[in-house]
Amino acid sequence: MSKAQLKLHVRILSDEQIAFGPGKAELLEAIYRTGSISQAAKSMEMSYRRAWQLVDTMNQCFHSNLVDTQTGGTHGGGAVLTELGQVVLKKFRAMEQQATQAVATEFEDLANYLKVNK
Amino acid sequence: MSKAQLKLHVRILSDEQIAFGPGKAELLEAIYRTGSISQAAKSMEMSYRRAWQLVDTMNQCFHSNLVDTQTGGTHGGGAVLTELGQVVLKKFRAMEQQATQAVATEFEDLANYLKVNK
Repeated sequence: MSKAQLKLHVRILSDEQIAFGPGKAELLEAIYRTGSISQAAKSMEMSYRRAWQLVDTMNQCFHSNLVDTQTGGTHGGGAVLTELGQVVLKKFRAMEQQATQAVATEFEDLANYLKVNK
Repeated sequence: MSKAQLKLHVRILSDEQIAFGPGKAELLEAIYRTGSISQAAKSMEMSYRRAWQLVDTMNQCFHSNLVDTQTGGTHGGGAVLTELGQVVLKKFRAMEQQATQAVATEFEDLANYLKVNK
């Protein structure tokens, strides 16, 4: 079925760095679900190194950590969302939803000009 | 000066293709300003080929052309926004603005958790 879709990406920059965005939100959700950075990375088909870098950026950009890690073996130990991590994630997802809702009518309006909607 | 910034990207997909987005909006504005695809491409430091592809995608995705070209020499001839091109551009920019305004308060709220805003 052919169709028109709205894609809305929200990113929060802290100086030049992306402090938070869709990829980091997805990673936090995966860490919450799996309890570890390596498992979260695997579930997203992302390298452990990359996932660790994203976590590190978030932890550096915010007042305090969004993810806390427990020491373990190589790639071992668990990872949990801190209270701030949960708050930021929730607020970010709410922002995305609000932005999408705010333009829903305008999107339908624009989509009417597309061939797929004819 | 260190600061937090909100980046909000809106894209309109038609099946798998990006029918319209920030890059295409910028290109339409450059075509409106310069009256030619090649000049518009140059002003955006984009290849003529790439600019032409973006115009072609838009023209294919919508009911009718967003950009009309006049024949001329190589890369010559002028290009103008059609009435539909102007409407789509205007509505898209309004959508971006509306989405940004809708989350302004939430963004300020989230930004307060960033180190740069401390």
